[in-house]
Amino acid sequence: MSINPEILNKLITILGKEYVFIDEQTRNNYGHDETEDLVFPPHVVVKPANALEIAEVLKLANEYKIPTTPIGARTGLSGGALSIYGGIGLSLERLNKIIEIDEKNLQVVVEPAVITQVLKEAVADKGLFYPVDPSSMGSCFIGGNIAENSGGARAVKYGVTKDYVLNLEVVLPDGNIIWTGANTLKNSTGYNLTQLMVGSEGTLGVITKIVLKLLPKNNFNILMLVPFYNANEACEAVSAIFRAGIVPSALEFMERDAIDWTMKFVEGINVQVKDGINAHLLIEVDGNYPEILLQEAEKIMNVVERFEIDDILFADTEEQKNMLWKMRRSVAEAVKGNSVYKEEDTVVPRFELPKLLEGIKTIGKKYGFKSVCYGHAGDGNLHVNIIKGDMSEDNWKTQVPLGIREIFELTVSLKGTLSGEHGIGLVQKNYMDIAFTKAHLEIMESIKRVFDPNNILNPGKIFPDDLT
Amino acid sequence: MSINPEILNKLITILGKEYVFIDEQTRNNYGHDETEDLVFPPHVVVKPANALEIAEVLKLANEYKIPTTPIGARTGLSGGALSIYGGIGLSLERLNKIIEIDEKNLQVVVEPAVITQVLKEAVADKGLFYPVDPSSMGSCFIGGNIAENSGGARAVKYGVTKDYVLNLEVVLPDGNIIWTGANTLKNSTGYNLTQLMVGSEGTLGVITKIVLKLLPKNNFNILMLVPFYNANEACEAVSAIFRAGIVPSALEFMERDAIDWTMKFVEGINVQVKDGINAHLLIEVDGNYPEILLQEAEKIMNVVERFEIDDILFADTEEQKNMLWKMRRSVAEAVKGNSVYKEEDTVVPRFELPKLLEGIKTIGKKYGFKSVCYGHAGDGNLHVNIIKGDMSEDNWKTQVPLGIREIFELTVSLKGTLSGEHGIGLVQKNYMDIAFTKAHLEIMESIKRVFDPNNILNPGKIFPDDLT
Repeated sequence: MSINPEILNKLITILGKEYVFIDEQTRNNYGHDETEDLVFPPHVVVKPANALEIAEVLKLANEYKIPTTPIGARTGLSGGALSIYGGIGLSLERLNKIIEIDEKNLQVVVEPAVITQVLKEAVADKGLFYPVDPSSMGSCFIGGNIAENSGGARAVKYGVTKDYVLNLEVVLPDGNIIWTGANTLKNSTGYNLTQLMVGSEGTLGVITKIVLKLLPKNNFNILMLVPFYNANEACEAVSAIFRAGIVPSALEFMERDAIDWTMKFVEGINVQVKDGINAHLLIEVDGNYPEILLQEAEKIMNVVERFEIDDILFADTEEQKNMLWKMRRSVAEAVKGNSVYKEEDTVVPRFELPKLLEGIKTIGKKYGFKSVCYGHAGDGNLHVNIIKGDMSEDNWKTQVPLGIREIFELTVSLKGTLSGEHGIGLVQKNYMDIAFTKAHLEIMESIKRVFDPNNILNPGKIFPDDLT
Repeated sequence: MSINPEILNKLITILGKEYVFIDEQTRNNYGHDETEDLVFPPHVVVKPANALEIAEVLKLANEYKIPTTPIGARTGLSGGALSIYGGIGLSLERLNKIIEIDEKNLQVVVEPAVITQVLKEAVADKGLFYPVDPSSMGSCFIGGNIAENSGGARAVKYGVTKDYVLNLEVVLPDGNIIWTGANTLKNSTGYNLTQLMVGSEGTLGVITKIVLKLLPKNNFNILMLVPFYNANEACEAVSAIFRAGIVPSALEFMERDAIDWTMKFVEGINVQVKDGINAHLLIEVDGNYPEILLQEAEKIMNVVERFEIDDILFADTEEQKNMLWKMRRSVAEAVKGNSVYKEEDTVVPRFELPKLLEGIKTIGKKYGFKSVCYGHAGDGNLHVNIIKGDMSEDNWKTQVPLGIREIFELTVSLKGTLSGEHGIGLVQKNYMDIAFTKAHLEIMESIKRVFDPNNILNPGKIFPDDLT
């Protein structure tokens, strides 16, 4: 339904006039995230100050059955924050405080709109470490990371967002406010609603406070870039490094094109890449003892030298490390700047990576698309950027989805799944039947109905269109 | 309802005569776990061979509305496996195979009735490490560990059971069989049913296959026993160790009585304890580099020496290490052998431990009971053994529950909760209102109904009697 003057007045009563927006510019601005070129503006954008105001908005939304979409930093890659049915766009941006850094318990309490990097830096100032670092960490919100269960480069050693979430304050669609768990490292007290909320993409409740576990800070790291002549061998090396008993703090894979395009489209990135090199691994080890890191780096060298590689680049300075990380983090942006694209977030057990990469290329040939692949190879998490280039609009709309379906069928046959860290949101939802049986999807949907019987909260996400 | 001949015949048709038991001895044998002295025999014990047979049993149970309780190794401490309404006792014991140790992906696929220690040793033989080690690991089943989200001594560094579960095959109460997730380290694909199943205490489904993440094996450790004159100071030292940047692989707390009773009741344990010593910390560091472990042990010494302690005992040999661990693991058994008791599994943020311990002693004085406390102090997880001793039956039944209620109110006020690793099961369920609001409990119960609308699977657990 659209927003009539009566509803608008009620929103203004709850939030104050200055936090309710119906102008086109604001609506468009809050109508997109980083997913392809999609724009779905809400009818009204609201900016509540706290959980109580959010509860009032949700009660109103329930009363009038208004679709309501939580909106964070709009850096998502699966369309989770798009108001596909219009309605209320619920921006969390004013809930942006770090409430407490608890040095005694190694925990932090934050609101959802704190930028992940700001959070990381604030705890680092106290000698503490929040390891999760999605590529968008300079602009994404921690609340969005929880909604999508974001990962990033350090997940291979330190785990993903879900592994750090101890407790959440959540406004339920009916306006009830609960804490999902307790501020403890262990918890066997009832069903784990904390973990049910993590990765639920804003469909079960609105997260308003977050308690995260922290680690003591690590002080040293070694970063190296290894060029491989053969991309499949780079994938094979990933598994071999673990089998040598090493757990690197990052183990990133980039196809040749990913690096070339980044150097072309992003400023300040310069790496010598020889002819014939087809892929790189960016490998980091970290810890508190530099002499041990040297030993581990040497072990890694011994592993990768079994493959056909060119000279390993060791980052000698902080500047060089930053440049290499900027290169890795800018790949998506570079690819995006170069063509219309679709990004898939495939994930498989890490040893299956070479099969996945090979399969993707074969499927691309069959359906006539080029793909640029890169990602968190240590986790088996490969981002597949399918490039439109000069493909016809018709093929882009009819052939590419068939190819994507085959890619996902391949990931599932390799015991992987559709999304490692981006979520399903809007753009992957019609592939969910590949990963789950109907009985399984119906259970998920029944859980959705437990929380949100009127389906007001972020409707049209996760579940395939033809489920019900 | 009781099991009539018609139902019995149907069970025999599904399972074969030799796997259906109605004799009193078998029923009593499967009618208890390690929770106090409680016995609730099922009317019939069945021992299915696989998921398909379990699906048939659950379909039958749904048709005739028969309470059905999954039963593992019966080492539980919250009464989760007790057939409190009789019905079918579903023993998982025949699903006891390690299906595959996947060295290439550092994963293992197991059935639920594999003994945790057997699993740990099998993967260690391949150079791999499954770190979770509940005190009962010599006899408990991995499936039970998942049902209760078990922890143990190494959780402080390595996490609890939930942190290793990647994917579960589950028979749902309606007989559908699903895999909850994928065999991947990252997963943002729909609601996290894997983590919903972990810790659900056999109320949502029957786990029949388990995919666990493994780590490369650590080869070295240092173990030390630190005697404190003041128990509260021992608790304070716990937090101080972390704040010094150390993450020990175990950090266990034992009150004086816990050690005295263990030496008295368990063979082969001998530690010199001076007069005036009131508590011990058992501290372990592990890793691959012995020289680093020595540095870390020294840092720990520097921390604990700020408190009033006696000489630190370093375990020099494997025998001595085994003896100290046996002492720690036998505390529950020793306390149990000494008196009727109730055990509570309190957990708080670790810095709050001194307040918790002090509060428990004050509450004990108020209600006239003695308690022996020990547990995983690094996690803030304190096991409180309330000793009946010569307390009157009347006080035991009326006063102690009031005291337990106050203890739980204290844990929740310290931002902790009721159970760190034992689960709620039968004996804690009527305290759930302390940790959760009614709205919250109703959501959990609605989730239960999504999976199990006829409430046949492990009924009478987790939810307070007066909820509905």
